[in-house]
Amino acid sequence: MVVTEKISLESKGHGDIIDVTPEVQQRLAETDISDGTVTLFISGSTAGLTTIEFEPGLISDFKKMWERNIPQDIPYEHNRAWGDGNGHSHVRASLLGASLVIPFSDKRLTLGTWQQIVVVDFDNRARSRQIVVQIMGE
Amino acid sequence: MVVTEKISLESKGHGDIIDVTPEVQQRLAETDISDGTVTLFISGSTAGLTTIEFEPGLISDFKKMWERNIPQDIPYEHNRAWGDGNGHSHVRASLLGASLVIPFSDKRLTLGTWQQIVVVDFDNRARSRQIVVQIMGE
Amino acid sequence: MVVTEKISLESKGHGDIIDVTPEVQQRLAETDISDGTVTLFISGSTAGLTTIEFEPGLISDFKKMWERNIPQDIPYEHNRAWGDGNGHSHVRASLLGASLVIPFSDKRLTLGTWQQIVVVDFDNRARSRQIVVQIMGE
Repeated sequence: MVVTEKISLESKGHGDIIDVTPEVQQRLAETDISDGTVTLFISGSTAGLTTIEFEPGLISDFKKMWERNIPQDIPYEHNRAWGDGNGHSHVRASLLGASLVIPFSDKRLTLGTWQQIVVVDFDNRARSRQIVVQIMGE
Repeated sequence: MVVTEKISLESKGHGDIIDVTPEVQQRLAETDISDGTVTLFISGSTAGLTTIEFEPGLISDFKKMWERNIPQDIPYEHNRAWGDGNGHSHVRASLLGASLVIPFSDKRLTLGTWQQIVVVDFDNRARSRQIVVQIMGE
Repeated sequence: MVVTEKISLESKGHGDIIDVTPEVQQRLAETDISDGTVTLFISGSTAGLTTIEFEPGLISDFKKMWERNIPQDIPYEHNRAWGDGNGHSHVRASLLGASLVIPFSDKRLTLGTWQQIVVVDFDNRARSRQIVVQIMGE
Protein backbone atom coordinates (compact mmCIF):
# COMPACT_ATOMS: atom_id res chain seq x y z
CA MET A 1 0.00 0.00 0.00
CA VAL A 2 1.18 3.51 -0.85
CA VAL A 3 -0.16 6.80 0.54
CA THR A 4 1.30 10.09 -0.73
CA GLU A 5 0.67 13.24 1.29
CA LYS A 6 2.11 16.72 1.61
CA ILE A 7 3.07 18.87 4.56
CA SER A 8 2.89 22.61 3.91
CA LEU A 9 4.93 25.00 6.00
CA GLU A 10 6.20 28.55 6.09
CA SER A 11 9.93 28.97 6.64
CA LYS A 12 11.96 32.10 7.36
CA GLY A 13 14.81 30.84 5.16
CA HIS A 14 18.43 31.69 6.14
CA GLY A 15 19.00 28.21 7.58
CA ASP A 16 15.65 28.05 9.38
CA ILE A 17 15.20 24.60 10.95
CA ILE A 18 11.63 23.34 11.33
CA ASP A 19 10.56 20.27 13.29
CA VAL A 20 8.03 18.27 11.26
CA THR A 21 7.99 15.16 13.48
CA PRO A 22 4.43 15.67 14.87
CA GLU A 23 3.04 16.22 11.35
CA VAL A 24 4.76 13.09 10.03
CA GLN A 25 3.47 11.04 12.96
CA GLN A 26 -0.04 12.32 12.34
CA ARG A 27 0.03 11.41 8.65
CA LEU A 28 1.21 7.93 9.59
CA ALA A 29 -1.55 7.55 12.19
CA GLU A 30 -4.18 8.39 9.57
CA THR A 31 -3.20 5.47 7.30
CA ASP A 32 -4.04 1.75 7.61
CA ILE A 33 -0.37 0.83 7.23
CA SER A 34 1.33 -0.60 10.32
CA ASP A 35 4.81 -1.58 9.03
CA GLY A 36 6.91 0.09 6.37
CA THR A 37 8.79 3.25 5.47
CA VAL A 38 8.02 6.94 5.51
CA THR A 39 9.89 8.61 2.66
CA LEU A 40 10.25 12.37 3.05
CA PHE A 41 11.30 14.48 0.10
CA ILE A 42 11.65 18.19 -0.36
CA SER A 43 10.67 19.50 -3.79
CA GLY A 44 13.11 22.34 -4.37
CA SER A 45 16.85 22.86 -4.58
CA THR A 46 17.58 25.23 -1.67
CA ALA A 47 16.38 23.15 1.30
CA GLY A 48 17.17 19.75 2.77
CA LEU A 49 16.06 17.17 5.31
CA THR A 50 17.79 15.48 8.24
CA THR A 51 17.30 14.44 11.85
CA ILE A 52 18.63 16.32 14.87
CA GLU A 53 18.02 16.73 18.57
CA PHE A 54 15.75 19.73 18.25
CA GLU A 55 17.00 22.06 20.98
CA PRO A 56 18.10 25.72 20.64
CA GLY A 57 21.79 25.07 21.27
CA LEU A 58 22.16 22.55 18.46
CA ILE A 59 20.03 24.60 16.10
CA SER A 60 22.54 27.42 16.56
CA ASP A 61 25.52 25.05 16.28
CA PHE A 62 24.20 23.48 13.08
CA LYS A 63 23.66 26.90 11.46
CA LYS A 64 27.18 27.99 12.38
CA MET A 65 28.63 24.83 10.86
CA TRP A 66 27.08 25.72 7.50
CA GLU A 67 28.37 29.28 7.69
CA ARG A 68 31.91 28.07 8.50
CA ASN A 69 32.10 25.43 5.77
CA ILE A 70 29.91 26.84 3.00
CA PRO A 71 29.92 30.60 3.66
CA GLN A 72 27.35 32.95 2.19
CA ASP A 73 29.79 35.78 1.51
CA ILE A 74 32.25 34.16 -0.92
CA PRO A 75 31.88 34.43 -4.71
CA TYR A 76 29.42 32.01 -6.36
CA GLU A 77 29.11 31.59 -10.12
CA HIS A 78 25.40 31.02 -9.61
CA ASN A 79 25.03 34.51 -8.14
CA ARG A 80 27.02 36.08 -10.97
CA ALA A 81 24.75 34.41 -13.55
CA TRP A 82 21.35 34.76 -11.88
CA GLY A 83 21.74 37.60 -9.37
CA ASP A 84 19.54 35.99 -6.73
CA GLY A 85 22.29 35.72 -4.12
CA ASN A 86 21.44 32.19 -3.02
CA GLY A 87 24.38 30.24 -4.44
CA HIS A 88 25.34 29.13 -0.93
CA SER A 89 21.77 27.90 -0.35
CA HIS A 90 21.91 25.58 -3.35
CA VAL A 91 25.34 24.18 -2.48
CA ARG A 92 24.34 23.53 1.14
CA ALA A 93 21.08 21.84 0.10
CA SER A 94 22.84 19.53 -2.37
CA LEU A 95 25.26 18.44 0.34
CA LEU A 96 22.60 17.83 3.01
CA GLY A 97 20.26 15.94 0.68
CA ALA A 98 16.60 16.12 -0.31
CA SER A 99 15.39 12.73 0.88
CA LEU A 100 15.09 10.94 4.21
CA VAL A 101 13.64 7.47 4.79
CA ILE A 102 12.44 6.35 8.22
CA PRO A 103 11.18 2.83 8.92
CA PHE A 104 8.20 2.26 11.20
CA SER A 105 6.89 -0.84 12.89
CA ASP A 106 3.52 -1.32 14.63
CA LYS A 107 2.68 2.26 13.60
CA ARG A 108 5.70 3.68 15.47
CA LEU A 109 8.54 5.55 13.77
CA THR A 110 11.93 4.13 14.79
CA LEU A 111 13.27 7.56 15.83
CA GLY A 112 15.38 7.86 18.96
CA THR A 113 14.00 9.72 21.96
CA TRP A 114 16.06 12.84 21.23
CA GLN A 115 15.83 12.65 17.44
CA GLN A 116 13.46 14.84 15.46
CA ILE A 117 12.79 15.11 11.73
CA VAL A 118 13.65 18.56 10.44
CA VAL A 119 13.49 20.62 7.28
CA VAL A 120 16.45 22.98 6.85
CA ASP A 121 15.62 25.91 4.59
CA PHE A 122 18.85 27.43 3.28
CA ASP A 123 17.25 29.96 0.95
CA ASN A 124 17.96 33.66 1.49
CA ARG A 125 14.32 34.63 1.93
CA ALA A 126 11.12 33.38 3.54
CA ARG A 127 9.53 30.54 1.59
CA SER A 128 6.36 28.48 1.50
CA ARG A 129 7.48 24.87 1.36
CA GLN A 130 5.85 21.55 0.61
CA ILE A 131 7.32 18.34 1.94
CA VAL A 132 6.26 15.10 0.28
CA VAL A 133 5.43 12.38 2.82
CA GLN A 134 5.01 8.99 1.24
CA ILE A 135 4.04 6.05 3.41
CA MET A 136 4.57 2.58 1.97
CA GLY A 137 4.07 -0.78 3.61
CA GLU A 138 1.49 -3.29 4.77
CA MET B 1 5.63 -4.45 -7.42
CA VAL B 2 9.39 -4.05 -7.79
CA VAL B 3 11.33 -3.27 -10.98
CA THR B 4 15.13 -3.09 -10.85
CA GLU B 5 16.97 -1.42 -13.73
CA LYS B 6 20.38 0.05 -14.40
CA ILE B 7 21.52 3.26 -16.03
CA SER B 8 24.97 3.07 -17.64
CA LEU B 9 26.99 6.22 -18.16
CA GLU B 10 30.48 7.44 -18.92
CA SER B 11 31.88 10.03 -16.53
CA LYS B 12 35.03 12.13 -16.78
CA GLY B 13 35.67 11.78 -13.05
CA HIS B 14 37.26 14.72 -11.16
CA GLY B 15 33.90 15.80 -9.74
CA ASP B 16 31.99 15.38 -12.99
CA ILE B 17 28.28 15.99 -12.42
CA ILE B 18 25.87 14.15 -14.71
CA ASP B 19 22.13 14.79 -14.95
CA VAL B 20 20.26 11.46 -15.01
CA THR B 21 16.74 12.88 -14.59
CA PRO B 22 15.51 12.09 -18.14
CA GLU B 23 16.80 8.49 -17.87
CA VAL B 24 15.08 8.00 -14.50
CA GLN B 25 11.82 9.42 -15.83
CA GLN B 26 12.00 7.11 -18.84
CA ARG B 27 12.52 4.01 -16.66
CA LEU B 28 9.55 5.03 -14.55
CA ALA B 29 7.38 5.57 -17.65
CA GLU B 30 8.17 2.04 -18.86
CA THR B 31 6.75 0.39 -15.73
CA ASP B 32 3.12 -0.27 -14.75
CA ILE B 33 3.67 1.37 -11.34
CA SER B 34 1.88 4.68 -10.78
CA ASP B 35 2.63 5.45 -7.10
CA GLY B 36 5.74 4.65 -5.10
CA THR B 37 9.44 5.36 -4.74
CA VAL B 38 12.41 5.40 -7.09
CA THR B 39 15.50 4.32 -5.17
CA LEU B 40 18.76 5.29 -6.83
CA PHE B 41 22.00 3.71 -5.71
CA ILE B 42 25.53 3.97 -6.99
CA SER B 43 27.57 0.77 -6.79
CA GLY B 44 31.06 2.02 -6.02
CA SER B 45 32.83 4.00 -3.35
CA THR B 46 34.10 7.07 -5.22
CA ALA B 47 30.84 8.59 -6.49
CA GLY B 48 27.61 9.83 -4.94
CA LEU B 49 24.07 10.97 -5.72
CA THR B 50 22.13 14.13 -4.93
CA THR B 51 19.77 16.69 -6.45
CA ILE B 52 20.81 20.14 -7.68
CA GLU B 53 19.64 22.88 -10.02
CA PHE B 54 21.63 21.68 -12.99
CA GLU B 55 23.11 24.90 -14.39
CA PRO B 56 26.79 25.67 -15.13
CA GLY B 57 27.23 28.20 -12.33
CA LEU B 58 26.15 25.79 -9.58
CA ILE B 59 28.07 22.92 -11.09
CA SER B 60 31.20 25.03 -10.75
CA ASP B 61 30.21 26.20 -7.22
CA PHE B 62 29.53 22.66 -6.03
CA LYS B 63 32.90 21.44 -7.33
CA LYS B 64 34.71 24.29 -5.60
CA MET B 65 32.97 23.48 -2.32
CA TRP B 66 34.44 19.98 -2.39
CA GLU B 67 37.90 21.28 -3.18
CA ARG B 68 37.73 23.80 -0.30
CA ASN B 69 36.46 21.36 2.32
CA ILE B 70 37.94 18.02 1.26
CA PRO B 71 41.01 19.02 -0.81
CA GLN B 72 42.71 16.66 -3.19
CA ASP B 73 46.24 17.80 -2.36
CA ILE B 74 46.51 17.00 1.35
CA PRO B 75 47.97 13.72 2.65
CA TYR B 76 45.63 10.71 2.69
CA GLU B 77 46.49 7.40 4.35
CA HIS B 78 44.58 5.67 1.56
CA ASN B 79 47.00 7.08 -1.02
CA ARG B 80 50.01 6.07 1.03
CA ALA B 81 48.73 2.48 1.26
CA TRP B 82 47.31 1.99 -2.24
CA GLY B 83 49.03 4.59 -4.42
CA ASP B 84 45.97 5.30 -6.52
CA GLY B 85 45.71 8.97 -5.49
CA ASN B 86 41.95 8.97 -4.96
CA GLY B 87 41.73 9.23 -1.17
CA HIS B 88 39.82 12.51 -1.50
CA SER B 89 37.36 10.82 -3.91
CA HIS B 90 36.45 8.17 -1.34
CA VAL B 91 36.06 10.64 1.52
CA ARG B 92 33.86 12.96 -0.56
CA ALA B 93 31.69 10.08 -1.77
CA SER B 94 31.12 8.78 1.76
CA LEU B 95 30.00 12.22 2.89
CA LEU B 96 27.64 12.84 -0.04
CA GLY B 97 26.02 9.40 0.13
CA ALA B 98 25.34 6.55 -2.29
CA SER B 99 21.54 6.43 -2.13
CA LEU B 100 18.69 8.78 -3.02
CA VAL B 101 14.97 8.03 -2.74
CA ILE B 102 12.38 10.03 -4.68
CA PRO B 103 8.64 9.48 -4.29
CA PHE B 104 6.35 9.60 -7.30
CA SER B 105 2.59 9.87 -7.60
CA ASP B 106 0.45 9.34 -10.73
CA LYS B 107 3.67 8.45 -12.59
CA ARG B 108 5.26 11.85 -11.80
CA LEU B 109 8.42 12.28 -9.77
CA THR B 110 7.96 14.84 -6.98
CA LEU B 111 11.02 16.86 -8.05
CA GLY B 112 10.87 20.64 -8.00
CA THR B 113 10.98 22.55 -11.28
CA TRP B 114 14.65 23.47 -10.87
CA GLN B 115 15.73 20.24 -9.24
CA GLN B 116 17.58 17.54 -11.17
CA ILE B 117 18.92 14.13 -10.13
CA VAL B 118 22.69 13.98 -10.52
CA VAL B 119 25.55 11.55 -10.19
CA VAL B 120 28.74 13.14 -8.86
CA ASP B 121 31.83 11.18 -9.85
CA PHE B 122 34.69 12.10 -7.53
CA ASP B 123 37.22 9.60 -8.89
CA ASN B 124 40.50 10.89 -10.33
CA ARG B 125 39.98 9.32 -13.75
CA ALA B 126 37.25 8.70 -16.32
CA ARG B 127 34.92 5.86 -15.30
CA SER B 128 32.11 3.76 -16.70
CA ARG B 129 29.37 3.83 -14.08
CA GLN B 130 26.20 1.91 -13.40
CA ILE B 131 23.41 3.43 -11.37
CA VAL B 132 20.80 1.10 -9.91
CA VAL B 133 17.26 2.40 -10.40
CA GLN B 134 14.70 0.46 -8.41
CA ILE B 135 11.04 1.35 -8.73
CA MET B 136 8.70 0.05 -6.03
CA GLY B 137 5.00 0.71 -5.59
CA GLU B 138 1.56 -0.10 -6.86
CA MET C 1 6.26 -7.89 2.33
CA VAL C 2 7.96 -6.03 5.16
CA VAL C 3 10.43 -7.46 7.68
CA THR C 4 11.80 -5.20 10.42
CA GLU C 5 14.89 -6.32 12.32
CA LYS C 6 17.56 -4.79 14.52
CA ILE C 7 21.32 -5.10 14.60
CA SER C 8 22.87 -4.50 18.01
CA LEU C 9 26.48 -3.41 18.31
CA GLU C 10 28.98 -1.92 20.71
CA SER C 11 30.87 1.13 19.49
CA LYS C 12 33.83 2.94 20.99
CA GLY C 13 32.41 6.32 19.95
CA HIS C 14 34.83 9.12 18.91
CA GLY C 15 34.15 8.52 15.21
CA ASP C 16 34.31 4.73 15.46
CA ILE C 17 33.41 3.19 12.09
CA ILE C 18 31.80 -0.26 12.16
CA ASP C 19 31.21 -2.48 9.13
CA VAL C 20 27.71 -3.98 9.32
CA THR C 21 27.63 -5.44 5.79
CA PRO C 22 27.79 -9.13 6.83
CA GLU C 23 24.97 -8.63 9.37
CA VAL C 24 22.78 -6.89 6.80
CA GLN C 25 23.42 -9.64 4.24
CA GLN C 26 22.52 -12.26 6.83
CA ARG C 27 19.22 -10.58 7.72
CA LEU C 28 18.37 -10.39 4.03
CA ALA C 29 19.22 -14.08 3.51
CA GLU C 30 16.82 -15.05 6.32
CA THR C 31 13.79 -13.47 4.61
CA ASP C 32 11.66 -14.79 1.73
CA ILE C 33 12.07 -11.51 -0.16
CA SER C 34 14.17 -11.65 -3.33
CA ASP C 35 13.80 -8.13 -4.78
CA GLY C 36 13.42 -4.83 -2.97
CA THR C 37 15.13 -2.39 -0.64
CA VAL C 38 16.98 -2.64 2.64
CA THR C 39 16.38 0.54 4.63
CA LEU C 40 18.90 1.13 7.40
CA PHE C 41 18.20 3.68 10.10
CA ILE C 42 20.05 4.64 13.22
CA SER C 43 17.87 5.57 16.19
CA GLY C 44 19.84 8.30 17.91
CA SER C 45 21.22 11.73 17.09
CA THR C 46 25.00 11.27 17.46
CA ALA C 47 25.68 8.59 14.85
CA GLY C 48 25.14 8.19 11.11
CA LEU C 49 25.24 5.71 8.25
CA THR C 50 27.08 5.63 4.94
CA THR C 51 29.08 3.38 2.62
CA ILE C 52 32.85 3.36 2.34
CA GLU C 53 35.69 1.12 1.19
CA PHE C 54 36.39 -0.34 4.63
CA GLU C 55 40.17 -0.28 4.86
CA PRO C 56 42.34 1.27 7.62
CA GLY C 57 43.69 4.13 5.49
CA LEU C 58 40.25 5.47 4.57
CA ILE C 59 38.91 4.97 8.07
CA SER C 60 41.67 7.28 9.28
CA ASP C 61 41.13 9.73 6.40
CA PHE C 62 37.37 9.91 7.02
CA LYS C 63 37.90 10.60 10.73
CA LYS C 64 40.38 13.37 9.97
CA MET C 65 37.93 14.98 7.55
CA TRP C 66 35.38 15.31 10.35
CA GLU C 67 37.94 16.79 12.72
CA ARG C 68 39.05 19.35 10.10
CA ASN C 69 35.57 20.48 9.10
CA ILE C 70 33.53 20.05 12.29
CA PRO C 71 36.15 20.20 15.07
CA GLN C 72 35.51 18.92 18.55
CA ASP C 73 37.38 21.71 20.31
CA ILE C 74 35.46 24.82 19.21
CA PRO C 75 32.61 26.30 21.28
CA TYR C 76 29.19 24.65 20.91
CA GLU C 77 26.00 26.11 22.38
CA HIS C 78 24.84 22.55 23.00
CA ASN C 79 27.78 21.95 25.32
CA ARG C 80 27.18 25.21 27.17
CA ALA C 81 23.54 24.24 27.78
CA TRP C 82 23.88 20.53 28.52
CA GLY C 83 27.51 20.02 29.58
CA ASP C 84 27.87 16.66 27.86
CA GLY C 85 30.61 17.80 25.47
CA ASN C 86 29.18 16.12 22.38
CA GLY C 87 27.98 19.13 20.39
CA HIS C 88 30.32 18.18 17.55
CA SER C 89 28.89 14.64 17.57
CA HIS C 90 25.36 15.90 16.97
CA VAL C 91 26.36 18.31 14.21
CA ARG C 92 28.41 15.66 12.39
CA ALA C 93 25.59 13.11 12.64
CA SER C 94 23.01 15.53 11.24
CA LEU C 95 25.24 16.23 8.27
CA LEU C 96 26.04 12.58 7.51
CA GLY C 97 22.44 11.40 7.84
CA ALA C 98 20.58 8.70 9.75
CA SER C 99 19.16 6.68 6.85
CA LEU C 100 20.58 4.64 3.98
CA VAL C 101 18.59 2.67 1.39
CA ILE C 102 20.17 -0.12 -0.63
CA PRO C 103 18.30 -1.97 -3.40
CA PHE C 104 18.72 -5.72 -3.82
CA SER C 105 17.83 -8.03 -6.66
CA ASP C 106 17.76 -11.87 -6.64
CA LYS C 107 18.72 -11.67 -2.94
CA ARG C 108 21.92 -9.73 -3.71
CA LEU C 109 22.64 -6.24 -2.41
CA THR C 110 23.72 -3.92 -5.23
CA LEU C 111 26.88 -2.83 -3.37
CA GLY C 112 30.13 -2.42 -5.28
CA THR C 113 32.99 -4.82 -4.63
CA TRP C 114 34.87 -2.30 -2.47
CA GLN C 115 31.83 -0.74 -0.84
CA GLN C 116 30.77 -1.63 2.69
CA ILE C 117 27.86 -0.42 4.83
CA VAL C 118 29.12 1.35 7.95
CA VAL C 119 27.82 2.95 11.11
CA VAL C 120 29.80 6.01 12.18
CA ASP C 121 29.47 6.70 15.89
CA PHE C 122 30.41 10.33 16.58
CA ASP C 123 29.54 10.33 20.28
CA ASN C 124 32.26 11.14 22.80
CA ARG C 125 31.93 7.85 24.70
CA ALA C 126 31.40 4.15 24.08
CA ARG C 127 27.79 3.35 23.21
CA SER C 128 25.50 0.36 22.68
CA ARG C 129 23.73 0.99 19.38
CA GLN C 130 20.75 -0.46 17.59
CA ILE C 131 20.44 -0.20 13.83
CA VAL C 132 17.01 -0.73 12.31
CA VAL C 133 17.14 -2.99 9.23
CA GLN C 134 13.90 -3.01 7.32
CA ILE C 135 13.57 -5.24 4.27
CA MET C 136 10.70 -4.49 1.90
CA GLY C 137 9.88 -6.12 -1.43
CA GLU C 138 8.50 -9.22 -3.08
